[in-house]
Amino acid sequence: MTRGRLDVGVLGATGLVGQTLVARLADHPWFRPVWLAASERSAGRRYGDTSWRLPHALPPSVADLVVDEAVPARAPRLVFSALDAGVAGPVEAAFAASGRAVVSNARNHRMDPLVPLVVPEINAGHLSLLASQRRARGWTGAIVTNPNCSTVFLALVLAALDRFRPRRVLVTTLQAVSGAGHPGVASIDLMGNVIPAIAGEEEKIESETRKILGVAREDGVEWRDVTISATTTRVPVLHGHTESISIAFDAPPATADELAEALSAFTGPVPLPSAPARPILCLAEVDRPQPRLDVDRDGGMTVSVGRIRRCGVLDYKLVALGHNLIRGAAGAAILNAELMMAQGYLD
Amino acid sequence: MTRGRLDVGVLGATGLVGQTLVARLADHPWFRPVWLAASERSAGRRYGDTSWRLPHALPPSVADLVVDEAVPARAPRLVFSALDAGVAGPVEAAFAASGRAVVSNARNHRMDPLVPLVVPEINAGHLSLLASQRRARGWTGAIVTNPNCSTVFLALVLAALDRFRPRRVLVTTLQAVSGAGHPGVASIDLMGNVIPAIAGEEEKIESETRKILGVAREDGVEWRDVTISATTTRVPVLHGHTESISIAFDAPPATADELAEALSAFTGPVPLPSAPARPILCLAEVDRPQPRLDVDRDGGMTVSVGRIRRCGVLDYKLVALGHNLIRGAAGAAILNAELMMAQGYLD
Amino acid sequence: MTRGRLDVGVLGATGLVGQTLVARLADHPWFRPVWLAASERSAGRRYGDTSWRLPHALPPSVADLVVDEAVPARAPRLVFSALDAGVAGPVEAAFAASGRAVVSNARNHRMDPLVPLVVPEINAGHLSLLASQRRARGWTGAIVTNPNCSTVFLALVLAALDRFRPRRVLVTTLQAVSGAGHPGVASIDLMGNVIPAIAGEEEKIESETRKILGVAREDGVEWRDVTISATTTRVPVLHGHTESISIAFDAPPATADELAEALSAFTGPVPLPSAPARPILCLAEVDRPQPRLDVDRDGGMTVSVGRIRRCGVLDYKLVALGHNLIRGAAGAAILNAELMMAQGYLD
Amino acid sequence: MTRGRLDVGVLGATGLVGQTLVARLADHPWFRPVWLAASERSAGRRYGDTSWRLPHALPPSVADLVVDEAVPARAPRLVFSALDAGVAGPVEAAFAASGRAVVSNARNHRMDPLVPLVVPEINAGHLSLLASQRRARGWTGAIVTNPNCSTVFLALVLAALDRFRPRRVLVTTLQAVSGAGHPGVASIDLMGNVIPAIAGEEEKIESETRKILGVAREDGVEWRDVTISATTTRVPVLHGHTESISIAFDAPPATADELAEALSAFTGPVPLPSAPARPILCLAEVDRPQPRLDVDRDGGMTVSVGRIRRCGVLDYKLVALGHNLIRGAAGAAILNAELMMAQGYLD
Repeated sequence: MTRGRLDVGVLGATGLVGQTLVARLADHPWFRPVWLAASERSAGRRYGDTSWRLPHALPPSVADLVVDEAVPARAPRLVFSALDAGVAGPVEAAFAASGRAVVSNARNHRMDPLVPLVVPEINAGHLSLLASQRRARGWTGAIVTNPNCSTVFLALVLAALDRFRPRRVLVTTLQAVSGAGHPGVASIDLMGNVIPAIAGEEEKIESETRKILGVAREDGVEWRDVTISATTTRVPVLHGHTESISIAFDAPPATADELAEALSAFTGPVPLPSAPARPILCLAEVDRPQPRLDVDRDGGMTVSVGRIRRCGVLDYKLVALGHNLIRGAAGAAILNAELMMAQGYLD
Repeated sequence: MTRGRLDVGVLGATGLVGQTLVARLADHPWFRPVWLAASERSAGRRYGDTSWRLPHALPPSVADLVVDEAVPARAPRLVFSALDAGVAGPVEAAFAASGRAVVSNARNHRMDPLVPLVVPEINAGHLSLLASQRRARGWTGAIVTNPNCSTVFLALVLAALDRFRPRRVLVTTLQAVSGAGHPGVASIDLMGNVIPAIAGEEEKIESETRKILGVAREDGVEWRDVTISATTTRVPVLHGHTESISIAFDAPPATADELAEALSAFTGPVPLPSAPARPILCLAEVDRPQPRLDVDRDGGMTVSVGRIRRCGVLDYKLVALGHNLIRGAAGAAILNAELMMAQGYLD
Repeated sequence: MTRGRLDVGVLGATGLVGQTLVARLADHPWFRPVWLAASERSAGRRYGDTSWRLPHALPPSVADLVVDEAVPARAPRLVFSALDAGVAGPVEAAFAASGRAVVSNARNHRMDPLVPLVVPEINAGHLSLLASQRRARGWTGAIVTNPNCSTVFLALVLAALDRFRPRRVLVTTLQAVSGAGHPGVASIDLMGNVIPAIAGEEEKIESETRKILGVAREDGVEWRDVTISATTTRVPVLHGHTESISIAFDAPPATADELAEALSAFTGPVPLPSAPARPILCLAEVDRPQPRLDVDRDGGMTVSVGRIRRCGVLDYKLVALGHNLIRGAAGAAILNAELMMAQGYLD
Repeated sequence: MTRGRLDVGVLGATGLVGQTLVARLADHPWFRPVWLAASERSAGRRYGDTSWRLPHALPPSVADLVVDEAVPARAPRLVFSALDAGVAGPVEAAFAASGRAVVSNARNHRMDPLVPLVVPEINAGHLSLLASQRRARGWTGAIVTNPNCSTVFLALVLAALDRFRPRRVLVTTLQAVSGAGHPGVASIDLMGNVIPAIAGEEEKIESETRKILGVAREDGVEWRDVTISATTTRVPVLHGHTESISIAFDAPPATADELAEALSAFTGPVPLPSAPARPILCLAEVDRPQPRLDVDRDGGMTVSVGRIRRCGVLDYKLVALGHNLIRGAAGAAILNAELMMAQGYLD
């Protein structure tokens, strides 16, 4: 049923996240991509003639769209943003000012107190900030953001364990190259190598997680009182961020099984087209999750968790894996738009 | 000066660690490899005709040695063991019983209370256990072991920070394939992938480190009271284990600089041919250490440390890197033999 | 419609090709896997409890099958064989003798004059050999084989160019690790490396191609008079063999475009469920085909070709790419079974 | 002996080839790097403070040099050029005009009839072109070039087989990422992948080889009458270009052994510090040469050859491997400078 699909646009449609957005939107039951914008270099070209870097073919339904510049007046009501952080700030604000609902993957507005930073299974209620956002900024549109990729996976795990009251979290990430976009990291720098730092990534994990797990008030979010310490590394993996996580709880579960059950039982507040029934899958095999074998589960929207066991220093430790381009970026943004649609924010 | 070189043998000379031992011993100022043993499959073949897997050429001085079986009576007084854990236990004991000093990289005897588990810069004094060992076992020879590869790097870091009294340690490792020997991990399992578990490795790190940092008594080692929690992973790197380490201290240093100074100033009790003047090198660049760029420093005997900074959950965190085949295996064993020589245990 | 599906079995169901066969058969419109056999080590275990190495989940419909031993009397009428060459010869013959139609990926019977070596788009008529095969061997069943993976892609290219009469062919392959099965090549041997030889592979390409392109007579195949010289290498790629091919023709096309048109226009004699409408896809981009971007086209059943241009030494050169596990193995066998079904050989 | 070392400069000293030049010159018996130039972005910075990308440490003797701009008047008499092709043309000409001997790795002047394109073991006599070059251009200095990396290895092989009169050559290369400089190819484009095209590379191999093997006349080089057809690919290898080569000869050797003997016996006209006694090493093992195991032989200056055998289409085929950054770039340039020194061109 194509009739009911909402026309949507994509800002930054020629980057890696942008292409992933377009590929997923082309088949989406609720949305239909009709407007694609990118930098001046690509503007004016047929989308099917730009450089497509995904293994599945460019969707025929968008091939003939002509890439536009980022002009708000020409955009549909709902716009996904995969813009680079270097330009996303003012451009997204301009679209919101002109009445567009901007669902953004960029980091620029994430920590703005009046901008919801949303993972639908965790904090759907944060969309209530939009009323204050519009009032304070004088926007007729809105900006809603999703977290940094490595943050999403950790936040889902912590949210699922909420009743045990996580208090201190140590995480070391092993992140894939597609998280750095294109061209991202040079082959000669990463081949057979580990780069033990990713600029800005640790701060994002440590702060965004607390906002997501916090409580929305009228003038912003009261952050969750949890301390996170992150070390982020880049490894020679194409897709999929692996996270080694140790957690101390205020009310720790009695056993690792109890913790696993909480992860497996976790679910969102409302079914959405892109949301798996259970966003977290616990794997019992001793050597899982693995990017090559597990990253594409449920089309990349499921976080896989394994190696759940006691930690001698904190309480429990585990390994989590998520698809950085899907659950951590393009899929996360689409899920947020689905939530807005389901809750009447796009009426 | 070849005259003074002590004749030595190598058990397991055709494996990856065995070849690395032979390559390093061929040029050694104190030792001269004259006897090489391996499994029945290789026994009787010219060493130069076995399958050599190192990038540098097989040393001409050993090419004509005929590979022997592991018969103690045919071995010289000092024997290095790179045997597989599946066979090392009784074989090494037989060599010790027959008067050979066995310097072993195998895990089998490491946790025996009367077997020194030595990193010369840390616990040279543990060699004093050898008197009890000989007495208790009735051996005329001896067994001395070096730790598991990923343990060496962590133990050196903790020893260098001894005066701050490390108490709780969380470590996540990113380990290279050469640590698994040959054939080790299948290409199809590791290419572009992370395997988030290495059998037995976490237990080794958690227990061996405590023994190394402990105090030698007459009947064994009083383990150090430090709690270690490890998560070990395999990544697509050829050589070099990277470790993300967080530490809580009883007497934490005031600043990260103070911690770095302690690492850089750390040194062993006595100069040895294979020991770098400073076993730990602190790198100031934000994205170091990296296996490709740093693993071969000082011929692979230096542990590189970077990203020293405060940890919000414990006190400080850092990233360490060491060469698993050199400082973590073949070089570690040779260093132990040098220590034994220097302290008169081989007279 | 499950009713019409033919019960089939898989020999060697726990290997990499075997698992790929099972995964593809589970959804097949004509076949239904009901019997899975493997080595004694796996026999007696639930298939869902064996080690599954594919990224997509093990099909629920086969999870509860109990792995059987390779006993002909317990097998259904049609059996796919993904057996190792070490055992395939007599086992497949025994199944054929007992009335089973064996569609094999193993190399053992490929060059037998009375065994069809089939790529449906090229030489469907070779199935006519089955009459002589049954008579000569006294079998009530049959053996049909598909070529070695790197042979399929080259043979399809040459068949599509048949009217230009290819006469001499030079090919250098860059082959993926999944072509070596599991465990196959050790990580330490292939990481960041090229291994410039694959045992037996060059001979297979040079001889199998000539048989496939030949003419079936009553007592065997008259090989095509074409000379092929192959160099085969292994590269650090997961799936997808790339082939650099140069061809001299007796009646060369006038232009590279004419050659490309012949490739694109090539099609099989009869539509089959697994057969793409056009088995060869020509890519115009200067840097294609690439394994990561092109190997999965049409579910892995299409051969991608690019860089078609004149060759200064022979007449034309090009680069071809195919999925070794799909079009080169599991998919090839299934396609052969579909052809047999369509032509009444399984009635 | 430092006294006799000639002061030299390096243009483009901060790139990958530039750093390799500096590293090798720092220890050179004849040359001493005293002047380093790079783009405006680096100019004015201490060389030890620029980004060093090699695994061995930056040589202390050059760490305190301040990076200069490319101003001829400030350069010493002999200057190595590792400039990008985008700027090398006029800059190198300006240095030659101002009296500097420019030994260049850039492609810009290679095919100029009056510029020697030299591999000392092959065509040392081409330096005689310098007289005409100076006269025609009015330069007081000179430009001498070395070939493109993949060309060097092929040219050495063909030169060693000169007496068999090679006439037609088909080559497919598998080239390492370091050949593309830094940043070069993006990780996401090459990880687990093959890129079957390298811009401009095939033309260089096909034409440069013919000039190198040609005869120097007063006004240029009479190219060798040999036809070469090349296909070049990029593979996930750090250093080392592998080449699959087939050759038709006018006077083919009777056996592969005879061909191997000619390769092994090949040697240059005069000993030079960087030249191995035998520039080509034939390996008998069936699966060699391999980049990981063979690329560093003789410090990277030796070309390894294996798999010498008959070719059904041309006469013989083999696999060659060379270090693209050393024998194919920095080492090649230094070798040319050594030749110039030895033959009095720098007096």
